[in-house]
Amino acid sequence: MDSNQTQWASKAWHLLSLLRAQSPLIQCITNFVSMDIVANTLLSAGASPAMLHAVQELPDFTPRAAALCVNVGTLSPSWLPAMKAAAQICNTLRTPWVLDPVAASASAFRFEACQELLRLRPTVVRGNASEIIALSLASAEPHANASKGVDSVHESMDAVEAAKLLAQTSGAVVAVSGATDIVTDGNRVVGAHNGVAMMQKITATGCSVTALIAAFVAVDKNHALDATVSALAVFGVAGELGMKMAKGPASLRMHLIDALYGLDEAALNSHVNITSLC
Amino acid sequence: MDSNQTQWASKAWHLLSLLRAQSPLIQCITNFVSMDIVANTLLSAGASPAMLHAVQELPDFTPRAAALCVNVGTLSPSWLPAMKAAAQICNTLRTPWVLDPVAASASAFRFEACQELLRLRPTVVRGNASEIIALSLASAEPHANASKGVDSVHESMDAVEAAKLLAQTSGAVVAVSGATDIVTDGNRVVGAHNGVAMMQKITATGCSVTALIAAFVAVDKNHALDATVSALAVFGVAGELGMKMAKGPASLRMHLIDALYGLDEAALNSHVNITSLC
Amino acid sequence: MDSNQTQWASKAWHLLSLLRAQSPLIQCITNFVSMDIVANTLLSAGASPAMLHAVQELPDFTPRAAALCVNVGTLSPSWLPAMKAAAQICNTLRTPWVLDPVAASASAFRFEACQELLRLRPTVVRGNASEIIALSLASAEPHANASKGVDSVHESMDAVEAAKLLAQTSGAVVAVSGATDIVTDGNRVVGAHNGVAMMQKITATGCSVTALIAAFVAVDKNHALDATVSALAVFGVAGELGMKMAKGPASLRMHLIDALYGLDEAALNSHVNITSLC
Repeated sequence: MDSNQTQWASKAWHLLSLLRAQSPLIQCITNFVSMDIVANTLLSAGASPAMLHAVQELPDFTPRAAALCVNVGTLSPSWLPAMKAAAQICNTLRTPWVLDPVAASASAFRFEACQELLRLRPTVVRGNASEIIALSLASAEPHANASKGVDSVHESMDAVEAAKLLAQTSGAVVAVSGATDIVTDGNRVVGAHNGVAMMQKITATGCSVTALIAAFVAVDKNHALDATVSALAVFGVAGELGMKMAKGPASLRMHLIDALYGLDEAALNSHVNITSLC
Repeated sequence: MDSNQTQWASKAWHLLSLLRAQSPLIQCITNFVSMDIVANTLLSAGASPAMLHAVQELPDFTPRAAALCVNVGTLSPSWLPAMKAAAQICNTLRTPWVLDPVAASASAFRFEACQELLRLRPTVVRGNASEIIALSLASAEPHANASKGVDSVHESMDAVEAAKLLAQTSGAVVAVSGATDIVTDGNRVVGAHNGVAMMQKITATGCSVTALIAAFVAVDKNHALDATVSALAVFGVAGELGMKMAKGPASLRMHLIDALYGLDEAALNSHVNITSLC
Repeated sequence: MDSNQTQWASKAWHLLSLLRAQSPLIQCITNFVSMDIVANTLLSAGASPAMLHAVQELPDFTPRAAALCVNVGTLSPSWLPAMKAAAQICNTLRTPWVLDPVAASASAFRFEACQELLRLRPTVVRGNASEIIALSLASAEPHANASKGVDSVHESMDAVEAAKLLAQTSGAVVAVSGATDIVTDGNRVVGAHNGVAMMQKITATGCSVTALIAAFVAVDKNHALDATVSALAVFGVAGELGMKMAKGPASLRMHLIDALYGLDEAALNSHVNITSLC
């Protein structure tokens, strides 16, 4: 293992230890599908999840949160105002918040909602390549209808370039999930290689890692890129350890969360796989 | 094993293989309780689930779906318009859609909602005997208040006759869950015997198999009865395989989904149990 | 084991046996995070869960329920009227209902909602010490803003005294979860010592045991304190049995539910740990 890997493993372990020690309160305004696994992921990592979404509660509650996770998976017009209001409270208080633009291009309504949320300056955006490329293009050409022709875009635009562009235009750290996860602040680009393919056969693993990023950023808010990379590595290593005992997606889900709960320094040292891409 | 069983096993394997190869996009407007297990069932079978329910998104998104699953389990007035609008888009585009009339007789509001959805001509309706009998009676006597006296009805009406009548009046393939599942297009009646009793001790297994039917119908839209029977057989066999390792309902849930993911031709050949009832 | 323990184990077994025999219909108006595990907990214990929350359905459906569970975890203004209407129907029909005031102090909106629900005279209230202390204080000083300064309150007020006071002012049996669960009707105080610490690392175990209390109260509505203590003991013993096989929170969740399903008289006799505190 090269010294860079050792440093990343050390950083990931340091942040996970902080997370377990501090048990930061993470508010999640997330989709219905993911609520159970997101809450269990956060609990297993040592954080304190709180699922509250009523706009009436935000002025009282959101200021107590150490970070906010906003996920548009089952978006509806009645939920969007709370997402925006909570993000604005976070901005005012300099509380980090993380955006998961699930299926950003599924509809014009959703795409516009994601763009509005992006304008509220999330600390981190995590999505898959389709989502990040569509939002990146739209950020560069705000008057284009980026919800059209997304698939053709994929052929002409690289996820790394899209992520860098979106990071530059939005001010967020951008993470792109894939066989290798890419994380960039618009300047540095880091590749996070942990995880196993079967994790994509479990619903809401993407939502879960976004929430975990929020928890990591909560304990190191001045280094959002490092915290994001560390969260991806920790979740990916838990998936690799879980995979050793799994017989399919449902047992992988169980073993992954158990592994996240029990993760120790030695496992991170031997498994973390991070590289600088540029 | 008789030649009929061999043909059904072969058909189920063929459709499951198509499903894994095509990974059809299945839109689910389903209840809150079931979202996690429905999504995981679809992923494990090879489909791509999408839980979107905002009426604003349907014109953009529903046309991309290969099938739609509508489930009224946690129905409220704010969700019903989306269910109807999505069903209408499917009808216009000849996209198959499947209705699960959960607890149809729980209230007059719900019963009327199920009847409105039925009039939008679902490709398949799957429910338990109470639900199907209540809807069948109402379809025959539209001015009767079928939400009254459902229990007494059970004694006087056979589930097979109810299913045939509902299939004839609605134009849908009708599946009735029970110790033996019954599937009919109003003419043919097929019995699907796979599954284990403990599956009823896991919440939302009914919702999950309805979603799986949508996935199977998506890959064979011109043979909805065969696709429905195949989906019931595949889910039931996964339950039987899972039961071999289960120690209770929660481990059965896990092993069932693992088994669905790993299901192979040999397992289907040795387990599928389908009979023609008339 | 002293004779008191033997009596409690015998009572818990008696009520669990009744529950399995009667399979009471338990309506749950609960939060999105908990719906899956609450329904699975009720099914594994032998009850019939029904998650319905539309206000339109309550006059038809709630009268059929043997008990109601109201949980404010993901409260919003659109859900509160149904919670209140269902509680009122239960009061009219003398159907027991149970309140879980999740995160009562999270916001003024939520705190007032919990107070309104308390005034509808729940049969049982179950919460953690923070929730019960805040509500207890407010019940004693109705014009104080009890959502402020809750943390400081903890230092000055004992959970047992808070629970007794809340029981006296509300007329409910009050259960306080903790290392030892405390149950009181305002006069008797009982300590329920079963359970393992890791259960707090699984989301919605609190919501689940509240729903289980509703199921136990449904089969012994005239002895709400005994039913509550029994439900806490049964759930705690299932946790202890599950913990023997668990490797982390996710496998504990699975084994707990399996254990609840398979729980027998011998396991209750050897594990139930209940004491009279005064």
